[in-house]
Amino acid sequence: MISNKMKKLVANSSIIRAMFEEGKRLSAIHGEENVFDYSLGNPNVEPPESIKNEINKILNETTSKLVHGYMNNSGYEDVRSKIAQFINKEHNIDINSSNIVMTCGAAGGLNILLKTLLNPEDEVIVFAPFFGEYRNYVNNFDGKLVVVSTDINTFEPDMKVLKDKINNKTKAIIMNSPNNPTGTVYSEKVIQDLAKLLCEKEEELGTSIYLISDEPYREIVYDNAFVPYILKYYKNSFIGYSYSKSLSLPGERIGYVVANTKMDSFEDIMASLNVANRILGFVNAPSLFQRVIANCLETKVDVNIYKSNRDVLYNHLTKIGFKCVKPQGAFYLFIKTPIADDKKFCEEAKQFNLLIVPGSAFECPGHARLAYCISYEKIQNSLPAFDKLAELYGIK
Amino acid sequence: MISNKMKKLVANSSIIRAMFEEGKRLSAIHGEENVFDYSLGNPNVEPPESIKNEINKILNETTSKLVHGYMNNSGYEDVRSKIAQFINKEHNIDINSSNIVMTCGAAGGLNILLKTLLNPEDEVIVFAPFFGEYRNYVNNFDGKLVVVSTDINTFEPDMKVLKDKINNKTKAIIMNSPNNPTGTVYSEKVIQDLAKLLCEKEEELGTSIYLISDEPYREIVYDNAFVPYILKYYKNSFIGYSYSKSLSLPGERIGYVVANTKMDSFEDIMASLNVANRILGFVNAPSLFQRVIANCLETKVDVNIYKSNRDVLYNHLTKIGFKCVKPQGAFYLFIKTPIADDKKFCEEAKQFNLLIVPGSAFECPGHARLAYCISYEKIQNSLPAFDKLAELYGIK
Repeated sequence: MISNKMKKLVANSSIIRAMFEEGKRLSAIHGEENVFDYSLGNPNVEPPESIKNEINKILNETTSKLVHGYMNNSGYEDVRSKIAQFINKEHNIDINSSNIVMTCGAAGGLNILLKTLLNPEDEVIVFAPFFGEYRNYVNNFDGKLVVVSTDINTFEPDMKVLKDKINNKTKAIIMNSPNNPTGTVYSEKVIQDLAKLLCEKEEELGTSIYLISDEPYREIVYDNAFVPYILKYYKNSFIGYSYSKSLSLPGERIGYVVANTKMDSFEDIMASLNVANRILGFVNAPSLFQRVIANCLETKVDVNIYKSNRDVLYNHLTKIGFKCVKPQGAFYLFIKTPIADDKKFCEEAKQFNLLIVPGSAFECPGHARLAYCISYEKIQNSLPAFDKLAELYGIK
Repeated sequence: MISNKMKKLVANSSIIRAMFEEGKRLSAIHGEENVFDYSLGNPNVEPPESIKNEINKILNETTSKLVHGYMNNSGYEDVRSKIAQFINKEHNIDINSSNIVMTCGAAGGLNILLKTLLNPEDEVIVFAPFFGEYRNYVNNFDGKLVVVSTDINTFEPDMKVLKDKINNKTKAIIMNSPNNPTGTVYSEKVIQDLAKLLCEKEEELGTSIYLISDEPYREIVYDNAFVPYILKYYKNSFIGYSYSKSLSLPGERIGYVVANTKMDSFEDIMASLNVANRILGFVNAPSLFQRVIANCLETKVDVNIYKSNRDVLYNHLTKIGFKCVKPQGAFYLFIKTPIADDKKFCEEAKQFNLLIVPGSAFECPGHARLAYCISYEKIQNSLPAFDKLAELYGIK
């Protein structure tokens, strides 16, 4: 009785549920403390203490209609202004509230963007490996996902490969840096090359190609990695931002889309994002948390916790022979699997109570993702299990 | 550059914005206190005081991961259990957490339902007048909206009219009682007749016809009006519920979908709702407010405030000659316009600083909607303006 589109998706979702159930099953047998679940990108770092204080302050000082009431579908004007001012200061650009639509996280943001941009059969390019939901989001609006492989040594886009995939049906490109699942941060050179290529292609094809940068991990970077702000590099650019990771508030669904003022059809697009927020059923980003994040723009979680996790895990895994590009951001390690069959590898890892996700889920087989947003202690306790896994494949 | 679907919607949305701008323009000329804005369904009654206390309690007593973190896309298990128990007690039925998906308000709920049910060209029946967003929600999934007129004396569905509109493409019916824009509450007789007709048609056509009851106004009823619980009357039934009006929390986007256990393909449908919540970008209903409403299930806003508003406005308008079905619920009056051209009528009302919405916006011309969710004082102050409007048409 369910729609044809959903039938396939429900079948796929049972695979994710199966992994979750497997975790529960293993925990029941071996004890929760002996199961090492690296499968979920669920932040383990606490939200900053100031979140609670700000909520109390807002509830005590602001009239309830301006906390829990309806507002413009794009979000509270004063909240959008504060965010714009913060961005201007951080990145030395010049935007205002009209460049911003508050969204239900980055997922909500990407959906209203694609609703706005896509006609059926329009093409959207993504760089593999990529967050699997992009395929679903594009499919929601009958777009066609075009997967472009990346340089296997850096997981950065290769302009020569990309160039051949752009045609007059190319409506948008979704990039994601810091990247899930690789942890790669695209260099400024890559962003510059990408902007240059897109400008050339727009000129050649007489089309607009919108670059959407999905940036939930912008604040989660290590070793002073620089994350270029794409609005400064390319005219037809959007950023989908979320506070899910920067403030550890993934359940609250709060983020925004910011658009470059100079983009083609800027006013129509902003009007459409506003309407899309409404008609897709979001209506508006959750109201209390709009106010909360506006008061916490300078705040972020303690990134050093993730850095310690990265360091201990990366150092150990590479020491025992696993191959892996060192992540500069996010909280994922994307290892090369010692056998080509990544699903088999992840299946075999379960015998050591290790739950990790095959690269195939990110359309990059021969790899596996480890989400190290778990406790440091847990990671340390898991290292002997990785030793055994390495021994199994004779790589140690 | 925006999609063809969105082009039309953006054009329409500018009409709504025009009314909002008109309100601001009139306020600037005549003073905000002299402009009577009956255009928006934005609750003016304060949320119960307990909301603030519950938020504080949750923030102090619950670990942040269980307040702001990710959870199953259907929502916190314990929250869904509490809601199910509350429904069981209120309506003497037998459901549990597996019948419920927490949603971003009723709008989010309707979208995941239609995403789950509709293939392109599937038909969805609505009863005119109806909330205009239903057309957009159905259009999101390429369904075809079929509008069925109601009995003009009650605004309840007429089974004879409905019968002829049901065919083998009919996938769902959306009903809304208490109703926006009429305030009508469907009688138990109507629900029984509707259930009977749908059963007969399912039998005749060999199809499943899902009845979706959109119930954001369930708690806003007067004079002890009885709102039948459709899960008790019809097998293939859903309710889309929202706390936007019952707790005056429209900005927080919190509600749920509840499905009848006995419906066709119950398990597939619940699995699909879960996935649809994720891939449409909601991911989950906002997490803190899931916990808040779970602690406030017995609570609602002071409905007497709306009742006083209804009484003063209904009594006055009918006294001076306007025709109107007496609303038993919600916070809208749907008057018959003294001229057939409802748009012209609403345009002319502006000269008396009255902002009201043409019935055409609800696909029921010859009428106009007054949203009386404004202050009692404002309503009293507006009565002379309605006198002048009545005089203009010679009905007083």
